[in-house]
Amino acid sequence: MVKKIKLGILGGGGDSLIGVLHRVASFINDDYEIIGGVFNPVWEENIGFAKEIGLPTNRIYKDFDTLVHEELKLPENERIQVVSILTPNFLHFPMAKKLIDSGFHVICEKPMTTTFDEAKTLESALKKSKTIFALTHTYTGYPMVRQMREMIKSGTLGKIHKIDVQYYQGWINKLIHDSEKRKTTWRLDPEKSGASCCVADIGVHAFNLIEFTTGLEVKSILADFNYLYSDNKMDIDATMLVRISEHVKGIVRSSQIATGEENNLAISIYGDKGGLKWEQENPNYLYILSDDKPMQVYKPGHAYNSDLSLDGTKLPPGHPEGIFDSMSNIYKGVARAVRGQKYNSGEFPTMKDGVRGMSFIEKSIESNSKGNIWVELKN
Amino acid sequence: MVKKIKLGILGGGGDSLIGVLHRVASFINDDYEIIGGVFNPVWEENIGFAKEIGLPTNRIYKDFDTLVHEELKLPENERIQVVSILTPNFLHFPMAKKLIDSGFHVICEKPMTTTFDEAKTLESALKKSKTIFALTHTYTGYPMVRQMREMIKSGTLGKIHKIDVQYYQGWINKLIHDSEKRKTTWRLDPEKSGASCCVADIGVHAFNLIEFTTGLEVKSILADFNYLYSDNKMDIDATMLVRISEHVKGIVRSSQIATGEENNLAISIYGDKGGLKWEQENPNYLYILSDDKPMQVYKPGHAYNSDLSLDGTKLPPGHPEGIFDSMSNIYKGVARAVRGQKYNSGEFPTMKDGVRGMSFIEKSIESNSKGNIWVELKN
Amino acid sequence: MVKKIKLGILGGGGDSLIGVLHRVASFINDDYEIIGGVFNPVWEENIGFAKEIGLPTNRIYKDFDTLVHEELKLPENERIQVVSILTPNFLHFPMAKKLIDSGFHVICEKPMTTTFDEAKTLESALKKSKTIFALTHTYTGYPMVRQMREMIKSGTLGKIHKIDVQYYQGWINKLIHDSEKRKTTWRLDPEKSGASCCVADIGVHAFNLIEFTTGLEVKSILADFNYLYSDNKMDIDATMLVRISEHVKGIVRSSQIATGEENNLAISIYGDKGGLKWEQENPNYLYILSDDKPMQVYKPGHAYNSDLSLDGTKLPPGHPEGIFDSMSNIYKGVARAVRGQKYNSGEFPTMKDGVRGMSFIEKSIESNSKGNIWVELKN
Amino acid sequence: MVKKIKLGILGGGGDSLIGVLHRVASFINDDYEIIGGVFNPVWEENIGFAKEIGLPTNRIYKDFDTLVHEELKLPENERIQVVSILTPNFLHFPMAKKLIDSGFHVICEKPMTTTFDEAKTLESALKKSKTIFALTHTYTGYPMVRQMREMIKSGTLGKIHKIDVQYYQGWINKLIHDSEKRKTTWRLDPEKSGASCCVADIGVHAFNLIEFTTGLEVKSILADFNYLYSDNKMDIDATMLVRISEHVKGIVRSSQIATGEENNLAISIYGDKGGLKWEQENPNYLYILSDDKPMQVYKPGHAYNSDLSLDGTKLPPGHPEGIFDSMSNIYKGVARAVRGQKYNSGEFPTMKDGVRGMSFIEKSIESNSKGNIWVELKN
Repeated sequence: MVKKIKLGILGGGGDSLIGVLHRVASFINDDYEIIGGVFNPVWEENIGFAKEIGLPTNRIYKDFDTLVHEELKLPENERIQVVSILTPNFLHFPMAKKLIDSGFHVICEKPMTTTFDEAKTLESALKKSKTIFALTHTYTGYPMVRQMREMIKSGTLGKIHKIDVQYYQGWINKLIHDSEKRKTTWRLDPEKSGASCCVADIGVHAFNLIEFTTGLEVKSILADFNYLYSDNKMDIDATMLVRISEHVKGIVRSSQIATGEENNLAISIYGDKGGLKWEQENPNYLYILSDDKPMQVYKPGHAYNSDLSLDGTKLPPGHPEGIFDSMSNIYKGVARAVRGQKYNSGEFPTMKDGVRGMSFIEKSIESNSKGNIWVELKN
Repeated sequence: MVKKIKLGILGGGGDSLIGVLHRVASFINDDYEIIGGVFNPVWEENIGFAKEIGLPTNRIYKDFDTLVHEELKLPENERIQVVSILTPNFLHFPMAKKLIDSGFHVICEKPMTTTFDEAKTLESALKKSKTIFALTHTYTGYPMVRQMREMIKSGTLGKIHKIDVQYYQGWINKLIHDSEKRKTTWRLDPEKSGASCCVADIGVHAFNLIEFTTGLEVKSILADFNYLYSDNKMDIDATMLVRISEHVKGIVRSSQIATGEENNLAISIYGDKGGLKWEQENPNYLYILSDDKPMQVYKPGHAYNSDLSLDGTKLPPGHPEGIFDSMSNIYKGVARAVRGQKYNSGEFPTMKDGVRGMSFIEKSIESNSKGNIWVELKN
Repeated sequence: MVKKIKLGILGGGGDSLIGVLHRVASFINDDYEIIGGVFNPVWEENIGFAKEIGLPTNRIYKDFDTLVHEELKLPENERIQVVSILTPNFLHFPMAKKLIDSGFHVICEKPMTTTFDEAKTLESALKKSKTIFALTHTYTGYPMVRQMREMIKSGTLGKIHKIDVQYYQGWINKLIHDSEKRKTTWRLDPEKSGASCCVADIGVHAFNLIEFTTGLEVKSILADFNYLYSDNKMDIDATMLVRISEHVKGIVRSSQIATGEENNLAISIYGDKGGLKWEQENPNYLYILSDDKPMQVYKPGHAYNSDLSLDGTKLPPGHPEGIFDSMSNIYKGVARAVRGQKYNSGEFPTMKDGVRGMSFIEKSIESNSKGNIWVELKN
Repeated sequence: MVKKIKLGILGGGGDSLIGVLHRVASFINDDYEIIGGVFNPVWEENIGFAKEIGLPTNRIYKDFDTLVHEELKLPENERIQVVSILTPNFLHFPMAKKLIDSGFHVICEKPMTTTFDEAKTLESALKKSKTIFALTHTYTGYPMVRQMREMIKSGTLGKIHKIDVQYYQGWINKLIHDSEKRKTTWRLDPEKSGASCCVADIGVHAFNLIEFTTGLEVKSILADFNYLYSDNKMDIDATMLVRISEHVKGIVRSSQIATGEENNLAISIYGDKGGLKWEQENPNYLYILSDDKPMQVYKPGHAYNSDLSLDGTKLPPGHPEGIFDSMSNIYKGVARAVRGQKYNSGEFPTMKDGVRGMSFIEKSIESNSKGNIWVELKN
């Protein structure tokens, strides 16, 4: 009998969207059961939420430290095995660090930490442990994103020479243009939200998509931020020129003031043998371009897709799966890893993605603040 | 504390797609827990599947009758409350009948029964009981399908005068063109699959979509089937002219030999004030047409949508939800009904949809066999 | 030196859209010069229009008969060679007949005649003459429509088993719903516009597209018209079931009350090896479907297209050509024919298309009026 | 009587695509007649081409200087009025200069000159003359591009804060990856093609589209070129960060190695009240975005469009017009100007667009060569 993996959740209570996303993702492939967690720092809301979603309350803990302390007392086969961290960003690092050090597997929301140094510390901790660590760059779970990765690996595009990725949203318009709101919203307060808004929130997803799909490493970047108002201290629009090598270049365009855009993450990758295009809002279409042949449109679930892609599709072609399904594929990969089953690179983003992302964020800020100059990323 | 609803499942074991669809849908809104069921008539596979998906095996029963018998012995607050019927079509009626008579709530896959008479019998049974009955016309759960219904109800299109709906697939090509396969596949054997293939399987979804979205009733139909080969006895392509009244007409086009089509259900509705278009494969886009104003594109999750639509969206605009989410909305409505909470017409298809659908199937067959003449539907 | 072909035009003056379309089409490939014609029965408007478009007025005639009479007096090398008939429908037949009998080449707008009998008479006249006759089913000139024809001919789709074509417009809504307007508009007056509105105006284009692209002949049809109001005598919406053989069927859907639709002619053709889809409003995209391979998107101007398609594209891929260009391809084919150069079947629609179209219109009316029964087309 | 404007053409003979484009554009609105020109420096080809397209040969001149000399001898009412310059780039300046100085109106292909200094010289010459000068930024003639301009002017987007424009093609792949071809093609030889390939050829169109649609002026740019191979001296891919002011920023992305892209010019403009998107390959669709209302899709020919847009559409909605029609709108505007009729800003690009474009090209090269630094544009 396959036993469900015991899952604990930190944060994500109330009407948290990220909470729904992770909870549903954990259910989809019949791999996990939610055992307990800390949904909210306020006890009433914490326990109230557990009841609302029909969870037994005996392993709902008053705080994170108690969770770790109490769970470690339990025999190993009863203990929570995987903990999902959905708390505010500044808590990701201390929680992940303690969980790793205590031998729990971790699924961590992004950004992984608030600084590159924290990321490196976490990386060291992980190396010393035997735990599995996954970072939820959710979009990497889409079947057609996985298909991009496999097709590029197999040489479909030839040698890649140009990459263009965008992540455009418009939702910050309703805050930024109101002089009162832009002073008071925590989102635009560096004290509360960290040094970056747009790059840390969405630019890093775009960056990750480049490295995830191509397997290439960005070497250096030149960033240009738009603050839109002189009294705003946070980037809400940022363009990054990126270099993989002297002759392989790219662009990362991110914005939260792209009026009317919802969640428009889109990537175009061009090589000497072909090109490809994919858009998150229509995730089940992958376009393969050629200079002299008709464009081909790949869709999930067809036998012509790679194993990694097919593994992420549950229904036959024409039955749209979405972002819950994408996240569920990451949870599925983690479940295999936790169970010691065979799994493949690409099934979930790792610590390395987190470290790279933190460098991208910090170096973007550095480039912009120094007058839009080239700076090198670190590993 | 909200207690999860106790769900039993009949059929849907192994790698059944409909099994995954219902199971995931039941999880998504934290409303149900799967208690037991009969996944497969072969005991080894039945119990094996339960273990594979991590279910306790104590309420996995050897057959349907045992399930009913044993569950009824349990105190009411421990008993399975809702049973989902995912078995082969000919079992829908006897199972639903016995469940209704025994006081269980039922979620039934479609087609509801194999004949119109059975449907009427079931309708009578339901009237005498106090149970909830839902038919899973899955596509009605999409937020934009719900939005169509509400916009039409509120008069956005004015008086409707033309409806055109298609449901095109191509998968039967790989069976039908092979003279050996088309003789041996159960799908094309009326003994095993009932009197209709294309109309019963997909045409009825298209028909239902007309009545669900417009609130209108089709009065009469004229059907033309294509069998493609003289030795094939089952419709694999069928066009139905439909009349709602002398001046309100429609077309239902269904095919399983539309080569290369995946699951292309699409509806266009035209009224004297406006038109609308929607396609299942891109379910998050609803197009509102006008003769003299720019076309508008509605998307889920925006405040401009109706309550019924918004109730079916979990994430902000731009985060694609798919068919699991659509089905989960039906389960959510049923949960409200079962709990005696307020719910609205449109949250799940009902017995009436089942009765209408069976009439549509039988009358299509009649019209075609009598030489493509007009026949009237029954209620 | 290539001399331009001398073109005369009947009708199409003032702000006639069909006038612009033909005039521009005649210029595009440097093949024709407009010599004269009769743009309008009112002399002032006739001559005024000629001046407005910068034509010499010496060969602007007061009426059609004068044109024929005077032109025939001229030496053959000065005479108008080709006459385009853009007049109201009832004049097509007498003008075409006299022109053919007098040895002029004819480019005729559609519908070719007002009855099938006239069409047959014209066909006989043409057989006795040595003139070229082209019917402007404009859409056949699009490069991707030509590509469909050639791909089907070469077997890309295998044996065709299903065809679905629609031609949806919404413009008549603004007339039909107004009880005064629908009584007074000439469009809806059978005395002035002939026996059919929707089928004769657009349905016949849809029908022609089937026969043009597939090379198949429709054998019988069953038509259902919608008049929308009891005091309206003209079809403004019409669906035709069509049979090519017992196992090869199709649907022709046409409407002028498809609210918000502009000029939505679209065709889907399915065979045992593949499918294809094309839409007039995005004419430069041709979709080739397969049950087990990625969809391919063909675009004009690429070397992978057929000669017939490439002959109709003037610019490199990505430079959109439109309906003027489509019509110009028909004029180009006629120019070759007139000059005695080699040209291919498919370069322009012929008398046979006109005869077939008239049968389709008449038989649609017959089927509908007899209660939606099957009737056979004639050649 | 409206007399046609006498048009002369320089270059564009043989199978020149730009030749077809201008010739057809001049015909479309019945405004021009081609009187003569110099199609080719080789006399045989020059006169041969004139014959091929059915032109009288008496005003086909052996070279440019002869054309000017001989035409000036003619009485003014017989003289060529407008001359279209379609010759290789380095000839644009001397020809335009002499034509302007001699009192001819000029329609000039782009780039207007080879240097900014030449552009300024031409600008001075024009100021002293009374001639009309139009630069064929062809894309500005599309009805929906004109609609963008008018909607932005009328405040639909509010205050613009972000602009993103791309012009991606892939055709240079077939030259650049072949070490022999990239050394020998004139396109990649700075001696023959000027200092820039990608920016001068297509980047400048993208830049112009920003200024044409928004009425804003780009103040400074930071450019990053990709040469792809160390032995290639010409930019074939170039990204320009652009600043309109400290808080209004944009991106110009241009590439000729975007594999599989045909002619993908696309613009997105975002303001505090709305956004818009348009793509050249589907020019008849304009998308108006909003953070809280459904997206609207504008199409040509509808009464809801601006006068400037409607003036550029000849047929009713749903009849696709393309790039010939776009260019013809520029010719139409020039005809009005030449005839002294009323015309509006926006009907054709002017000398100012040419001057701005040359500054953009030169400054892009400067920024890139100095290490991707910010440089200011000049007027």
